[in-house]
Amino acid sequence: MIEIKTELTTNKKQKPDLNNLGFGRFFTDHMFVLDYKEDKGWHDPRIIPYQPISLDPAAKVFHYSQTVFEGLKAYLTVDKRVLLFRPESNFKRLNVSNERLCIPAINEELALEALKQLVAVDRDWIPSTPGTSLYIRPFIIATDPCLGVSSAKQFQFIMILSPVGSYYKDGIKPVRILVEDYYVRAAPGGTGAAKTGGNYASSLKGQEMASKDGYEQTLWLDGKEKRYVEEVGSMNIFFKINGTVITPALNGSILPGITRDSMIQLLKAKKIAVEERRISINEIVEAYHNGALEEAFGTGTAAVISPIGELKWLDEKIIINNSEIGEVTQMLYDTLIGIQNGSLKDEFSWTIML
Amino acid sequence: MIEIKTELTTNKKQKPDLNNLGFGRFFTDHMFVLDYKEDKGWHDPRIIPYQPISLDPAAKVFHYSQTVFEGLKAYLTVDKRVLLFRPESNFKRLNVSNERLCIPAINEELALEALKQLVAVDRDWIPSTPGTSLYIRPFIIATDPCLGVSSAKQFQFIMILSPVGSYYKDGIKPVRILVEDYYVRAAPGGTGAAKTGGNYASSLKGQEMASKDGYEQTLWLDGKEKRYVEEVGSMNIFFKINGTVITPALNGSILPGITRDSMIQLLKAKKIAVEERRISINEIVEAYHNGALEEAFGTGTAAVISPIGELKWLDEKIIINNSEIGEVTQMLYDTLIGIQNGSLKDEFSWTIML
Repeated sequence: MIEIKTELTTNKKQKPDLNNLGFGRFFTDHMFVLDYKEDKGWHDPRIIPYQPISLDPAAKVFHYSQTVFEGLKAYLTVDKRVLLFRPESNFKRLNVSNERLCIPAINEELALEALKQLVAVDRDWIPSTPGTSLYIRPFIIATDPCLGVSSAKQFQFIMILSPVGSYYKDGIKPVRILVEDYYVRAAPGGTGAAKTGGNYASSLKGQEMASKDGYEQTLWLDGKEKRYVEEVGSMNIFFKINGTVITPALNGSILPGITRDSMIQLLKAKKIAVEERRISINEIVEAYHNGALEEAFGTGTAAVISPIGELKWLDEKIIINNSEIGEVTQMLYDTLIGIQNGSLKDEFSWTIML
Repeated sequence: MIEIKTELTTNKKQKPDLNNLGFGRFFTDHMFVLDYKEDKGWHDPRIIPYQPISLDPAAKVFHYSQTVFEGLKAYLTVDKRVLLFRPESNFKRLNVSNERLCIPAINEELALEALKQLVAVDRDWIPSTPGTSLYIRPFIIATDPCLGVSSAKQFQFIMILSPVGSYYKDGIKPVRILVEDYYVRAAPGGTGAAKTGGNYASSLKGQEMASKDGYEQTLWLDGKEKRYVEEVGSMNIFFKINGTVITPALNGSILPGITRDSMIQLLKAKKIAVEERRISINEIVEAYHNGALEEAFGTGTAAVISPIGELKWLDEKIIINNSEIGEVTQMLYDTLIGIQNGSLKDEFSWTIML
């Protein structure tokens, strides 16, 4: 049994309006912190009141972005149980990201135990209205105050919790996506498969350009040939073509999404053909012209599923399923959300009860 | 005239041992801070005692690495004048980085004025022994506490100062470099030409692999074909082949180094042939086999010049100039250092006196 010290707040915050939570704007009363020093390893796990992080201005995270993070959710079921969705997968992936970013591996068992204790402490922050949840953000930052370009010798692993609103307040609405033909999110040999800040910093410009053109997100092509589909916004992407669901294979520059993996497993269980393979933007355009492009959607922890109603590629506008959510997309969304919030039976043993 | 408030410290630090400064390990008594908010723009420029930065754990810099930085130096001349080396170029480049990272542009004139005032306040920290200098680190971080993946609406622009030792305490020693054939620093359409943390985070792994193989730095090839030379470590790279000095042309994934630019200008002034063009690793290998590869060196603010004594590419060890510093390399080093520290006449108007 791992001992985690807990210092409870004496000054509880006022809870936010549950109808206006948004995403990642409000945080609970406590946070988890774990320190790393070269000579001590990871040490001093503790739950403390939510508070600012105080760092030397020379801390490496500010200069060289040596950082990784995760995102997952806790749900309150109708009968008031708390369910975590596949948290072991997140901590496993965090260690994969750590390896790429030269950050020492964390103890996944300790992280899970800490997460459970933290959510239990702030249990009354988990919102219960349909579509809401408690978003969990574990992250690691390099803290030593030294400007040499080299891996840090001091880190902090922190977890914070944010009650988040329904991504689809007015029902699921398909998004319009601009296929990016200049900026690149990740390249072979880069950090695309790791969940690290630099990937997101690099993607902001494409997002800004898409917004200026009136589109909501960017579809990212591969960094080498700018030909193969990789991700959409900060989500994985799926297409349904001629009855088969296709998602880009994990090639080293695509994030191995946990929602992505869950969707693949769900499709297999439902006996719907699913393929992980390389898929070019030209194949999508061709399928559209042949009338074979039936559905498209992004997957990620925040939205779960985000149906795609339109893709703009160069001068061509590809309208998918009459800009409405497709049948398989809707089924996947309903099934996964149902498993996550406990209203459907979890045949995959994905959820963990607190 | 821009007014910059100054709050002097009442608690001056002890100065470090000038013989053991290292790089970026000690910091002066003061720092400069400038805030940005969407409705106010950049505001409240101030010099304050060097102190920790206190940020909400949800601050965007910790999660999405929206950050840029610069590096430049101040030198104390023998007659006790303070010289800044091409500071306008740094603030100009900072704004280029800002554009790529969706960070609002700073006022370059204000930044230069602030830098001058900050260095003046901490003037007694500038070391005077040969080879030492005051390293200046301007940087910008995204501070709003919100986990949505989008450009921040709050930033801080900060400058800190660090007295640094001679890069070559025991004389210039050529380094041994591993040519990286798997990991990539930057790709076309990525952030390689911007000075942003993600590029450095992404490079740590290659550096770690090189160290494990007994090499000091990584030579980075292009992210698309892994064939063309881009940078070495966190420096630009030059080769002297058959009497001509060649450096990779700025292609969008290479940092436009200010030392790089100064070297090109120096070479032209000295009537030494210099070319900015694409150069493949195969061309280097071939030149080596033909006996035409005469010198190689990296350039950057920290080291000024770092001669390369050996390149390892796949199974081949390329020994350059018998692992000794070359004649042109030495001349460039002596000339640039001389201009920077005021011992040589600055015919390029690169230095600014405080």
